[in-house]
Amino acid sequence: MIELYHSVSARSFRVLWLLEELGLPYRLKMLPFPPRAMARSFLELNPLGTVPLLIDGEQRLTESSAICQFLCDFVPGTSLKVAPGDAAYAAYLNWLFMSDATLTFPLTLVLRYTHFEPPERRQPQVAQDYARWFLGRLRAVESATSQHEYLCAERFTAADIAVSYALMLSEFLDMSSQWGPATQAYWQRLRARPAFVRSLAIERQAAIEQGVDPTPSPLLRP
Amino acid sequence: MIELYHSVSARSFRVLWLLEELGLPYRLKMLPFPPRAMARSFLELNPLGTVPLLIDGEQRLTESSAICQFLCDFVPGTSLKVAPGDAAYAAYLNWLFMSDATLTFPLTLVLRYTHFEPPERRQPQVAQDYARWFLGRLRAVESATSQHEYLCAERFTAADIAVSYALMLSEFLDMSSQWGPATQAYWQRLRARPAFVRSLAIERQAAIEQGVDPTPSPLLRP
Repeated sequence: MIELYHSVSARSFRVLWLLEELGLPYRLKMLPFPPRAMARSFLELNPLGTVPLLIDGEQRLTESSAICQFLCDFVPGTSLKVAPGDAAYAAYLNWLFMSDATLTFPLTLVLRYTHFEPPERRQPQVAQDYARWFLGRLRAVESATSQHEYLCAERFTAADIAVSYALMLSEFLDMSSQWGPATQAYWQRLRARPAFVRSLAIERQAAIEQGVDPTPSPLLRP
Repeated sequence: MIELYHSVSARSFRVLWLLEELGLPYRLKMLPFPPRAMARSFLELNPLGTVPLLIDGEQRLTESSAICQFLCDFVPGTSLKVAPGDAAYAAYLNWLFMSDATLTFPLTLVLRYTHFEPPERRQPQVAQDYARWFLGRLRAVESATSQHEYLCAERFTAADIAVSYALMLSEFLDMSSQWGPATQAYWQRLRARPAFVRSLAIERQAAIEQGVDPTPSPLLRP
């Protein structure tokens, strides 16, 4: 059975949400955040110390958006996947890669230099540089969602899960009032999905059962 | 015909190199760097102002590692692609996503805060934080290449192109002495490939012909 190593609100949430959308069975292992510092024994499984870690037999993946693409092949014919040959395939791939490389990394800088670092190492200029950088790139989401209900293929896909995790993180950082109106409406549609709501409840329950802080925001954790 | 918008030494080099490895025909359009500031008319084609931009008929992609995955399907049976169902597919996908989200973004911070920003906005602490962050993640490359000639599938694939662009950028930043020995040997093998050497010559020639600075390092440009 698939095993997912996850920390509450971390980008491994993409994988949890997708597993719930796909209806795949999995075992959820919760880790305190950041696992590199807070769960040293995890380094034996993933020397990078990062979440997600997805284990499927001999296969191990650590990149959340790669896992989104990977898992869709477990459910033949799922509407969550856009296949090669489909006219929307190029856009689907582009969104999957953009979700983490372009839309999530800049937010981790905001998080780090306004919240995680001790006061003497905080860098308001850098946080501001990358908040602005993120909002600039987010115009691609505003443009797509002002014309369509979903990012590509005229339906909800794994690309929406991957990209909207960046919106969730940005909302934690109190940036959602700076999004465009189409992006705001898009996020409200996505967060209302039953599998999204269920995933929040599942990570909370699993955190409590496994003795991990269940607080659903990275800002309230060390 | 495929059109690739590229700046010398930018991450669009991944796409140029892959096109040369695949032997696909393409038109190369050179832009000064950063195009967002230096080639304002490019914003009409790509509102984000970033390179690469790949245009193939109605399809437009902007994420260099997504394009690497996308283009392999243009050459059926190419050994550069690892297909779903192959035992190495999970690793292939993971490296493709890791190449940009995990291995390239931190280097852009080093570049920005040691070279691109005016002196009063430079941030040596941030540059050092993300140089260290990059070198930590690079241990995954050291681990893979100390056991195998290539990252996955026991052969050269598009994942090697995507990941080793981060090595090229890191070398521009004078960090290569801090890589592990297997990573250094791996990079020497890759940069000796005829298609890599040819790509350097092609971008230089195209830059000169199109009136763009051909200097092959981002550090020497504004």
